[in-house]
Amino acid sequence: MNYKMMGRFIGHILLVEAVFMIPSVVISLVRQEEMACMGFAASICITLFISSLLLVLCRGSRRSFKAKEGLVCVGISWIVMSLLGSLSFYISREIPSYLDALFETVSGFTTTGSSILSEIEGLSMSILYWRSFTHWLGGMGVLVFVLAVGASGESNKGFTMHLLRAESPGPQVGKLVPRMKKTAEILYLIYILLTIVNIVFLLLGGMSLFEAVCTAFGTAGTGGFGIKNDSIAGYSPYIQNVCTVFMLLFGVNFSCYYMLLLRHFRSVFKDEELRFYLGIVIGSIVLITLNLKGFYGTLEETVRHASFQVASIVTTTGYATTDFDLWPTFSKAIILGLMVIGASAGSTGGGFKCARVLIIVKGLRRNLRRAISPQKVQVVRINDNMVDEKVLENTNAYLSAYVIILFLSFIVVSLDRVSVMTSLTAVLSCFNNIGPGLEAVGPTCNFGDFSWLSKLVLIGDMLAGRLEIFPILILFSRTTWGRLKG
Amino acid sequence: MNYKMMGRFIGHILLVEAVFMIPSVVISLVRQEEMACMGFAASICITLFISSLLLVLCRGSRRSFKAKEGLVCVGISWIVMSLLGSLSFYISREIPSYLDALFETVSGFTTTGSSILSEIEGLSMSILYWRSFTHWLGGMGVLVFVLAVGASGESNKGFTMHLLRAESPGPQVGKLVPRMKKTAEILYLIYILLTIVNIVFLLLGGMSLFEAVCTAFGTAGTGGFGIKNDSIAGYSPYIQNVCTVFMLLFGVNFSCYYMLLLRHFRSVFKDEELRFYLGIVIGSIVLITLNLKGFYGTLEETVRHASFQVASIVTTTGYATTDFDLWPTFSKAIILGLMVIGASAGSTGGGFKCARVLIIVKGLRRNLRRAISPQKVQVVRINDNMVDEKVLENTNAYLSAYVIILFLSFIVVSLDRVSVMTSLTAVLSCFNNIGPGLEAVGPTCNFGDFSWLSKLVLIGDMLAGRLEIFPILILFSRTTWGRLKG
Repeated sequence: MNYKMMGRFIGHILLVEAVFMIPSVVISLVRQEEMACMGFAASICITLFISSLLLVLCRGSRRSFKAKEGLVCVGISWIVMSLLGSLSFYISREIPSYLDALFETVSGFTTTGSSILSEIEGLSMSILYWRSFTHWLGGMGVLVFVLAVGASGESNKGFTMHLLRAESPGPQVGKLVPRMKKTAEILYLIYILLTIVNIVFLLLGGMSLFEAVCTAFGTAGTGGFGIKNDSIAGYSPYIQNVCTVFMLLFGVNFSCYYMLLLRHFRSVFKDEELRFYLGIVIGSIVLITLNLKGFYGTLEETVRHASFQVASIVTTTGYATTDFDLWPTFSKAIILGLMVIGASAGSTGGGFKCARVLIIVKGLRRNLRRAISPQKVQVVRINDNMVDEKVLENTNAYLSAYVIILFLSFIVVSLDRVSVMTSLTAVLSCFNNIGPGLEAVGPTCNFGDFSWLSKLVLIGDMLAGRLEIFPILILFSRTTWGRLKG
Repeated sequence: MNYKMMGRFIGHILLVEAVFMIPSVVISLVRQEEMACMGFAASICITLFISSLLLVLCRGSRRSFKAKEGLVCVGISWIVMSLLGSLSFYISREIPSYLDALFETVSGFTTTGSSILSEIEGLSMSILYWRSFTHWLGGMGVLVFVLAVGASGESNKGFTMHLLRAESPGPQVGKLVPRMKKTAEILYLIYILLTIVNIVFLLLGGMSLFEAVCTAFGTAGTGGFGIKNDSIAGYSPYIQNVCTVFMLLFGVNFSCYYMLLLRHFRSVFKDEELRFYLGIVIGSIVLITLNLKGFYGTLEETVRHASFQVASIVTTTGYATTDFDLWPTFSKAIILGLMVIGASAGSTGGGFKCARVLIIVKGLRRNLRRAISPQKVQVVRINDNMVDEKVLENTNAYLSAYVIILFLSFIVVSLDRVSVMTSLTAVLSCFNNIGPGLEAVGPTCNFGDFSWLSKLVLIGDMLAGRLEIFPILILFSRTTWGRLKG
C-alpha cells in the first residue's frame, strides 16, 4: 500500500472540508448562534490539525498508484470526512448523540437525506446551511473536487483515474476528455452552473436567498435534506414544479450536458440511457396519475404531486410534497421500483442506475439468444458501441453484491421491532441514497428511533450505496490487507 | 423446429397423465363421488383423445433435437399438462371457475401449494387425492418420468439431455450416470423409496392410509397442499416432526442419496451445497427460536414450530403448523430470506437454489479479488471442481431474470387493492413455488380473492419458477419463433 500518497490525498481532502466549513462560521457569527459558532470553529481546528499532520507526515513517495489503493483511498476518505464533518452537529449540541450526528452527516455526504431529526425548523441557520451543503459537496464528490482544483503535479495519471473511477457513479468511467483533471473541472463547472440557475429560479418564486441556496444544494446533490419540517409541501406549486424539473435535470448523465455544450445534439438525442431514464419517468407519472384518480382535488394537483414524487424518488433526492405512503398499492409499487432503479450513471443521483439496468436487460437478452442459437457470436451494444465483457461481468457482480447487502442489512435492521415493510424500505432508502421509505420511515417520519446497531448498518449502507459498493467491500476485505503483510 | 418429435413427446406425456388419473376414478367409484367420477372420466377421455391424435399425427422424423427445441418442448408440455389436468376440478364443479381450477392445478404441478380454496375439507376424496398427486408428479418432473419408463428407442442422446437439463432444477445438470435414461430411473427409484418410507412413518403416527399418502405426496414434491383446512397444525407433535425431517430430506440434492447408495460417504460429507443448506437451516432455527422467546408455552413447542416452518419454507413446501405472519419482524425477515434462497439444486424443492447462491457469492468474491490484484487469474471452485465460466454467466443471467420477473409481476399484482406486502409476498411465494406469503396471503389465507389478471401472472410465475425461467422466457421470445420463419 502506498500509505504516503493516500495520507497526503486524505490530508488534501480534509483541508478542503475545513475551508468549506468557513461559510457556516460566518453565518453563525452573523446570526449570533454561539453554540453553532463554537461547534464549527472547533471542527475546523480539529480538521485542520489532522489535515496538516497528514500532509507533513506523508511527504515524498512518487511510486505509482494501484487500482486497489484508489478504491481503499476513496473508502477511507469518505469515512474520515464524515467522522470530522459530524463534529459540528455534536459540539454545538444541536444533535446530542455523536452516532446520530454521524448518521446525519453520512446521510448528507452520501446525498441520502434520511434524517434522525423530527424537528428541523428548530436548528440554527448555520447548522442548516452546513447540513444542506454536505449534499452539494457529496453529490459530485469531494475527491472529484480536489482533482479539479488540485495542483496538476499531484495528478499522475493512474492515481486520478482510479480515484475518479471509484467515486463517480455508473458502470463505466465518465471520462469526457483524455485528461482527468480537465474532466473533473468540466463536471464541476456544469454542476455549479446548473446549481446557480436553480437558485435563480427558486428566488423568482419568492424564496429567500438562504432558502433558495439550501433547497438548491439538496436538489443539485439529489440529497433531500429540507429546511422545513414538511419538506417542500408548504411551498407554492411554482416552487414545487421548479424542484421537479431540476431534480430530473440533476439525474441526467452529466456527459449529456457536455455533449450539448459541444453541440452534439444528435448523440444526446439518441442516448439510450437518457431515453430509458425519461421513459420510466414519463411512464411512471402517467401510471401513477391514472391510479391516483380521485385522490386529489384537481388533475393539476394530481399531476404535480405524481411528477414531483416520481422525480424525487427516481433521482433518489427524497424531497416530498405529499405522503406517498398513503397512495394506493399500485402507485407505491411503482415508487418502490423507482427506488431501486435510480438515476442515470454519471449524474449526482444514486440507486442501481439506469445504465446498469440497461446492461443487465441486454445481457439477459443476449443470454437467451445464445440458448436459442448457441453457435452464433452475440454481443451487447449500447449507443451502437459494443459493451466490454468485463463491464458486463462487473455489472452482474454489482447486482449480486447489491442483492446480498440489501438482504443482510434487512435481516439486521429487522431486529428492531418495526414492521417488515419499515425495515425493508429503510434499508432500500439508505442503500439507494434516497431518504424516505414506507410506513414508519415514510415521508412524514424519520430514522431517529432505530437502535444503534441499525443506525450503524444504515450508515454502512449509505456509504456503500454512494461509493457503489466495491470501495467499501474492498476496504473490509481480508485479501486487501492480507496482501499487505505478504 | 422439430414439431413431429415434440408432438410425439407431448403425446407420451399426456398418455402418462391420463394413466395417472385412473386411481382418482377408482377412489371416486369406491367413495361413490358421482360428480368427481364424471370429472375424471371426462378428463381421461379428452386427454387420451388429444394424446392419441398427437401420437398418430406425429409419427416419423428422426432428425436430431436442438437445445432450443428441448426448452420449448418442456414449456409447452407443462402448459398443456396443466390445461388438461385442471379439467377434473372444473367438470366435477368442485372448482366452478376454470381459471381457478387452472391456478390450483399449476400450483399443484409446480409444487407451489398456493390455493384459491378456503374450504378444503369439503372436497371429495378423489379430488383431494388428485390435488396432492399433482405435487408428487410435478416434484421430480413428468418428463423425467417419461424418460425413465420410456422406450429406449426414443431416447436419442441430445433429445433426452436437453429435456432433462430443462426440467431438472439447478444450475448444472444432475447427471448421475452417463446414460440419461438410467439417471432418470435412479432419480425416480430414490424418490419412490423415500416417499414410501415417509408414508410408513406417518402411518406409525396414527394417520389413515389416505391421509398418509396425500401428506407424503405433498412432502415429497415439496408442494404443500394439505387435506385439512389448518394444514398440519392439527396433527400430533410426532407427525409434525416427521414432516419436518422429510421436508428437509426432499430438499437435499438427490445426487447425495445416490452417492450414499454407492457408499461415497466422504464426498457427501464434504459437499459444499449440502453444508450450506444444512447451515442455513440450523442457523435459521436457532435464530428464530431465540427471537420467539416467550411466544409459545414451552421450549419444545418453540423449537418444533421454528424447525417445521423453517423446513417448510426453505424446501418451498409450504405446510404450516402455526401462523408465522404473527411472528416478530426478525423471524419474518429470516422466513422471507429462506423463501428466496430455497432448496438444493437437484432436489424437488424450488426457489433460487442453494447452489446458485454459492455460485453467486463465490463469483462476487472472485470479482473482488480481481479488482484487488487484476494481474492474477482467479477461478471459482465448488467441491474442488472449477466452475465453468458459462455456468457462472448463466447463473448471473438467472439472477437478472429472477429480479426482473419478480419486479414486473409485483407491479401488476399490486393493481389489486391489497397491501404492498401482500402483493410482494404473493409473487415471491408463487415464483419460488412455496405456497403461503405474508399478510393477506399468509399461512391461514388463500389466493382466491385476486383478480383474473393477477391469477394469470401468478400462474406464469409458478411455471417460470418451477422450470427455472429460461424455458418459459424462450417460449415467449420473438427470436425463437422468428428463426422459425427464416
